[in-house]
Amino acid sequence: MTARLEKSLEYRFDRPELLRQALTHRSHSSPHNERLEFLGDSVLNCAVATLLYQRFPDLKEGELSRLRANLVRQESLAEIATGLSLGDTLRLGEGELKSGGFRRPSILADALEAIFGAVYLDSGFDTVARVIEHLYRARIEQIDPRDASKDPKTALQELLQAKHLPVPQYSLLATRGDAHAQEFEVSCAVPAIKLEVTGNGISRRGAEQQAAQAALEKLRGS
Amino acid sequence: MTARLEKSLEYRFDRPELLRQALTHRSHSSPHNERLEFLGDSVLNCAVATLLYQRFPDLKEGELSRLRANLVRQESLAEIATGLSLGDTLRLGEGELKSGGFRRPSILADALEAIFGAVYLDSGFDTVARVIEHLYRARIEQIDPRDASKDPKTALQELLQAKHLPVPQYSLLATRGDAHAQEFEVSCAVPAIKLEVTGNGISRRGAEQQAAQAALEKLRGS
Repeated sequence: MTARLEKSLEYRFDRPELLRQALTHRSHSSPHNERLEFLGDSVLNCAVATLLYQRFPDLKEGELSRLRANLVRQESLAEIATGLSLGDTLRLGEGELKSGGFRRPSILADALEAIFGAVYLDSGFDTVARVIEHLYRARIEQIDPRDASKDPKTALQELLQAKHLPVPQYSLLATRGDAHAQEFEVSCAVPAIKLEVTGNGISRRGAEQQAAQAALEKLRGS
Repeated sequence: MTARLEKSLEYRFDRPELLRQALTHRSHSSPHNERLEFLGDSVLNCAVATLLYQRFPDLKEGELSRLRANLVRQESLAEIATGLSLGDTLRLGEGELKSGGFRRPSILADALEAIFGAVYLDSGFDTVARVIEHLYRARIEQIDPRDASKDPKTALQELLQAKHLPVPQYSLLATRGDAHAQEFEVSCAVPAIKLEVTGNGISRRGAEQQAAQAALEKLRGS
């Protein structure tokens, strides 16, 4: 299983125990992947920032930030993880297994970040940056830099207006976490075209922007 | 001026134009330092994450995140920048010069991040990670890992209770920025001991945590 994963990553671990830890969910056993995820998240941010900086020499800081946020959000990571069949290699506890944890976007995204952390510890920054570039190349090539100049909520509203559709409705679905580290989940819906997507963020506003971005992608894809 | 700065950084630029750009505020001329700041911010996050990961093998992900947030926040960066006399080397526009921009924490912090971005482009990740380690070593050595297990607002309230002092008062001082990228500034005050500090964040809650952290540091330092 992990041999195929290494092949898809175009990376072979010197210390396979790091990969094993990256694939180990907290519900399974210790050492699990949460500390590696902390490291991998920052490695991913830095590697993607570098790719965007180089590819879009004319974009401003805020535009680059917006593009990056879109590339590193949970949904994008979970899609890449699914492309790697990461779910098949995860080590989950009994309960998570039964409830289909190997398909859950948050578990997949966290494990992928942990893999980045593991590659970084195994071989350093330049190597993990190459692995990340390999996984993100197609997504970065598809970016239309004009998308960066508007925030997703504005872009979505303009797109719907151009199509003579009503404005989207945002609603708060859930808040999670401690008071000092809350996460918000919101939905963005356009009932007239049966569109409903969700977004997450550490602020309600951020979650709405993410949901709007997901809506934009759906609308453009179809 | 910049020779002394390079000496303090323990780094000499191969391409001095990168350092010049990092020190150029948007108000002065183009190319200015905003794109470098975008890059440097992510480099700093990753380098500090690595230092904390290695130094505190027993801390959990959330605890590491909290310690990092404290090390990379504007106030910490501005302090380091002040230690480097960065204000003397900044290239500011007329208006910013007159209003004392060379002392403003946000301008100093942004320029320091831009310097990290410039070193990264000049010599790669491993080199900038060494520069960051050099600048942060003393701060990281001073960390008491027990601080990481509580969020700053809780820790502050407990410390004040232990001293039989009233609970702190938080108030919103300002919000800045566009609707999609707002920044909040709050104060945290304990009038009984004439303590008042401020914090910034992309959420009001985050700004309060930062202010509480600053209050904790003041109380412990005195």
